Amino acid sequence: MTMSIRIEAALEGAVLRASAGQAPPLLAQSLRYALFPGGARLRPQLCLAVAKACGDDHPALADAAAAAVEMLHCASLVHDDLPCFDDAPVRRGKPSVHMVYGQPLAVLCGDALIVMAFDALARAGAMAPSRLAPLVSTIVLGVGLPGGAVAGQAWESEPDPQVEPYHAAKTGALFVAALMAGAIASGADPLPWRRLGETLGAAYQVADDLLDAFSDQDECDKPIGRDAALKRPSMVARLGVKGAHDRLQSLIGEAVAAIPPCEGEQTLRELVRIQATRLVPKQLALSAA
Amino acid sequence: MTMSIRIEAALEGAVLRASAGQAPPLLAQSLRYALFPGGARLRPQLCLAVAKACGDDHPALADAAAAAVEMLHCASLVHDDLPCFDDAPVRRGKPSVHMVYGQPLAVLCGDALIVMAFDALARAGAMAPSRLAPLVSTIVLGVGLPGGAVAGQAWESEPDPQVEPYHAAKTGALFVAALMAGAIASGADPLPWRRLGETLGAAYQVADDLLDAFSDQDECDKPIGRDAALKRPSMVARLGVKGAHDRLQSLIGEAVAAIPPCEGEQTLRELVRIQATRLVPKQLALSAA
Repeated sequence: MTMSIRIEAALEGAVLRASAGQAPPLLAQSLRYALFPGGARLRPQLCLAVAKACGDDHPALADAAAAAVEMLHCASLVHDDLPCFDDAPVRRGKPSVHMVYGQPLAVLCGDALIVMAFDALARAGAMAPSRLAPLVSTIVLGVGLPGGAVAGQAWESEPDPQVEPYHAAKTGALFVAALMAGAIASGADPLPWRRLGETLGAAYQVADDLLDAFSDQDECDKPIGRDAALKRPSMVARLGVKGAHDRLQSLIGEAVAAIPPCEGEQTLRELVRIQATRLVPKQLALSAA
Repeated sequence: MTMSIRIEAALEGAVLRASAGQAPPLLAQSLRYALFPGGARLRPQLCLAVAKACGDDHPALADAAAAAVEMLHCASLVHDDLPCFDDAPVRRGKPSVHMVYGQPLAVLCGDALIVMAFDALARAGAMAPSRLAPLVSTIVLGVGLPGGAVAGQAWESEPDPQVEPYHAAKTGALFVAALMAGAIASGADPLPWRRLGETLGAAYQVADDLLDAFSDQDECDKPIGRDAALKRPSMVARLGVKGAHDRLQSLIGEAVAAIPPCEGEQTLRELVRIQATRLVPKQLALSAA
């Protein structure tokens, strides 16, 4: 089974469980709307790739870890799009959740997705109990406080945010968690995967800053120009477009070099390169060519 | 150690862990603000009481379960108070979280508390791995979809909500989860505790409806008259004040009768009676006396 099929099936299973019985129909619909169709599914792809590289001896747990990471990512998108944050009317090429279902259900949709992530882990973890606690703790580091995605978003409400802890928390932490969770799900030591996660997270954040500053609205699945409008710390504001592009290329190189020796090393190297290429805004790739 | 000291210590530990290192300071403050000083701590008290009644052979896990349930309850209060839901300016006698920290941090505060609940379970569960998965799954049933607290809140956004599934999800499910989690944390069968949880949850919901319809603002720690104003299904609207009060008394009797045979049965009976008495709005208790 391809990784994409495994990821979509795990997400579908989570939505079906949440929508069973007497679930409130609109909230159940909003979950499906928030999760499908997905974006690049970058984090769960990386999670599964590492699980495979580490032997994939418990695929159901790896699938649950990948789905959990994606549900937490989507929860953060739904909440970040709310009027009190980015006030984003569009996400992944369609109206954002609060535009379709209203703010109350958008808040609850994010809450439900967070809970569903831990439910998925617990269900699959029941068959591999010794892996469950480290898996939950690792994913919590990626999403919660002090340094996960929620903390990252909260830096935008601080009067004087610092760019490194902000970016590390906002995007880096969930990449690190995705990779380390893949290793734990396969019973492997997660620590050798930390550096790759940090580097990919940093690359992704620079790419996101470039996309926000530089790309056409057509190319981007969310409103652009927000960083400058909202006066957020941005690598483009700091290094310029050329500087940020150079930094992205060097981070991609670092990421490939940070892949630890493992069974599927070559496949993983390929995946990182492919995903990295997708990060570069098209116009920039053309003008650099 | 008294149950109250155990609960406060477990919550304090969770806030300290979340506030460590480079946590965004305002969000960290908001967590403390949302959790302390607490209300009656009804759910964690019941959770610990059941854990004790079942032998309390792993107190750290019982404490984590109690703290998790309370953090999830507080998360739902923070989100329910938001302008897009109840728009409540006051909670537990002080300005609500969004009034002090703003809406973005209030959304994130609730998100962080949800994540912290599962973190607490995973940390303590690492020493009792076989109990962790059922503990997480049980608490998920109390808070998530299809029938937990988040689902309950979502029924308020449905065009035609039904009173029983709405109330069962909005308050009953987390009571059930609190009690069953106490049993699981002590390695006991959780099922005998379900009925007590359902009955207490129903009693609490009737009491809440009475409080909303009947009490003085002075007596109540949140804005009153909201159910009628927001046209929510309410037992008072359905049965009248006297009918709802009779129903509350009969549910309290059912709850005491639903306590399964156990070690600390007498203490637990006492606790249920004391907590139940606190549920009856003062004016109503006086007029009924």
